[in-house]
Amino acid sequence: MLPRPSGIVSLLTDYGSRDPYAGILRGTVLQKAPKATVVDLGHDITPCDVEEGAFHVLTTMHSLPVGTVHVCVVDPAVGTAQAHLAVATGHGYWLGPDNGLLSPVLAVPGAEVRRLDLEHLQLRPASRTFHGRDVYAPVAGWLAAGRYGFSALGPRHEAPVRLVHGGEPGRVLHVDRFGNLITGWPAERLDGVVGVRLGGQRVPLRSTFAEVAVGAPLALIGSFGLLEVAVHRGSAAAHFGIGRGAAVELLQGGMA
Amino acid sequence: MLPRPSGIVSLLTDYGSRDPYAGILRGTVLQKAPKATVVDLGHDITPCDVEEGAFHVLTTMHSLPVGTVHVCVVDPAVGTAQAHLAVATGHGYWLGPDNGLLSPVLAVPGAEVRRLDLEHLQLRPASRTFHGRDVYAPVAGWLAAGRYGFSALGPRHEAPVRLVHGGEPGRVLHVDRFGNLITGWPAERLDGVVGVRLGGQRVPLRSTFAEVAVGAPLALIGSFGLLEVAVHRGSAAAHFGIGRGAAVELLQGGMA
Amino acid sequence: MLPRPSGIVSLLTDYGSRDPYAGILRGTVLQKAPKATVVDLGHDITPCDVEEGAFHVLTTMHSLPVGTVHVCVVDPAVGTAQAHLAVATGHGYWLGPDNGLLSPVLAVPGAEVRRLDLEHLQLRPASRTFHGRDVYAPVAGWLAAGRYGFSALGPRHEAPVRLVHGGEPGRVLHVDRFGNLITGWPAERLDGVVGVRLGGQRVPLRSTFAEVAVGAPLALIGSFGLLEVAVHRGSAAAHFGIGRGAAVELLQGGMA
Repeated sequence: MLPRPSGIVSLLTDYGSRDPYAGILRGTVLQKAPKATVVDLGHDITPCDVEEGAFHVLTTMHSLPVGTVHVCVVDPAVGTAQAHLAVATGHGYWLGPDNGLLSPVLAVPGAEVRRLDLEHLQLRPASRTFHGRDVYAPVAGWLAAGRYGFSALGPRHEAPVRLVHGGEPGRVLHVDRFGNLITGWPAERLDGVVGVRLGGQRVPLRSTFAEVAVGAPLALIGSFGLLEVAVHRGSAAAHFGIGRGAAVELLQGGMA
Repeated sequence: MLPRPSGIVSLLTDYGSRDPYAGILRGTVLQKAPKATVVDLGHDITPCDVEEGAFHVLTTMHSLPVGTVHVCVVDPAVGTAQAHLAVATGHGYWLGPDNGLLSPVLAVPGAEVRRLDLEHLQLRPASRTFHGRDVYAPVAGWLAAGRYGFSALGPRHEAPVRLVHGGEPGRVLHVDRFGNLITGWPAERLDGVVGVRLGGQRVPLRSTFAEVAVGAPLALIGSFGLLEVAVHRGSAAAHFGIGRGAAVELLQGGMA
Repeated sequence: MLPRPSGIVSLLTDYGSRDPYAGILRGTVLQKAPKATVVDLGHDITPCDVEEGAFHVLTTMHSLPVGTVHVCVVDPAVGTAQAHLAVATGHGYWLGPDNGLLSPVLAVPGAEVRRLDLEHLQLRPASRTFHGRDVYAPVAGWLAAGRYGFSALGPRHEAPVRLVHGGEPGRVLHVDRFGNLITGWPAERLDGVVGVRLGGQRVPLRSTFAEVAVGAPLALIGSFGLLEVAVHRGSAAAHFGIGRGAAVELLQGGMA
């Protein structure tokens, strides 16, 4: 059973804030669904970095009400023959290019995938370079306003592109502005783990910052349910001199 | 015929995101129109750069529903005797200083221009420096909520300031975050054009990125209906070492 | 008498725009109050800078409709035993950590302060690091939607942390993006003042930029009702080579 549209549309892109693109995207959703609530999940993904975009899709996918329509655009291959996807789960709807960006949603059990049929939707993109405005935003508005149901958007799409990334959790997926190193290790993989090793150092697994001294490093289950390496009132990125992609090894009880 | 207010107010300023100004602007619109939908078109215009602001007005002016009220503030002369303008077209309403920022809207056939009569509107600006909060946002809220009609805002204003810029299309108007060079050449001026010359190089006019090799430059009609110079999966700004204001010459069929 | 909820929730944090945190905060409010209007006051406070955050609380506290719920998060001590506060005034509601961030609201005569009772609210924070999502946003949604009244949020809290800062107005509290130096001197303290001294220079107090030459410095009452030092069409920060925290001395009539 697919959820009823919530009337909310979220936006996640690499458009940044200095160009008119994000604003135009917001406006275009409202053109198709003037009563919709448009919410920014973020527009500062590194330009064309699909993997970073997929991390944001992963970490935000359950943060909005059931039935929300999510527009996700990081699209280095815009203007090629790549399909435009719509994905539905029991939680909501996602629209975006078929380049792996939506991998975390595709991994949800029961996710349905369709390829937008632009002709049937009477969408004639005005440009070859701004599919956010010309394709995804209008469809999001129509879905949110109930003009089209999910199954009317186009035919089933069999083999969407998936990032292999999810298979390699032992790396830093994201460095946040506080300098926390967010890894791909999920909480459920940490039975018996007492710490991690990264950059040649061992770091103990703790429950909260306050369990170590100010300035000391720790590993903990972060707010996304993923293992993070942090420094109490400091920056782990600065402490370890390590960035995205760095290896993080789990240390079992006997090894610590 | 002027459009009915849509209940939507857009904001376009040079206030940035580190100061309280943009947030206060959003709140002030809601004080006058608590049911309004407030949409950011952008707040990262280079401080006091009226010409850059006018580019954003141009490229976003039809991106919201008919009847939207647009607040536009880039105002290096705030606190002087400059008029506060309201402009109406068949598409919507624009509020902003009389310094050329609204030039693209003034160029719309049939555009009506009024000068806000602060006394009649019982607006007593609390500051000499923040007309966005003290003048434009309240008037936008009132227009959106239907408290005032357009003609009640003040007398007709005869000779608003216009940027001459629109007359000189052969330049780079904007460099976007992907490194695309957006020129002032509109699509309808490109009959018979086969390419452009900039920075001493010739670049072919193509329909989409995929028609040239990865890393190769091309000119194409971009998403604003303006000629852009781009590099397939690269940055034209980096490739050509060229920025805003650079000359871009059209090459006719016989010349290429 | 506490105000009726306006259905509006504002957000003020140090989460920045590159991480998923601000987007998740917006979504979480909507999960609890799908009809709410969520407004960003800003997310670019310097990470963990409580004093800068308090400046933003001060300058934005009356910029939204009466009855608005404000979520304020700058929380270097997240994960410790620190209380979660709810503060109510005749103007609205504020939620945030008990670390001084809400000092300007606590100083409002008649402000009521409660400590969130997480158990009573059946809030079991999913993380030790993201109380914005796990505590403040849900409570804000519930307050805005009328599920809980203010007095149901928890017991009175007697001695909230206050920044002493308010007692030392003679400093630059904030440097804005235009280079204006905003001091803590309120307009009502300026009787008989004719100028200020900073960085060894005297600067005259004027009413508006236009009263001095382009490029010349002046002091004026800024848009927050605080004394600011500015340069007409220039940057006072660049002119004086001075930043936040610099001393600004008032000059009385006879001394100028």
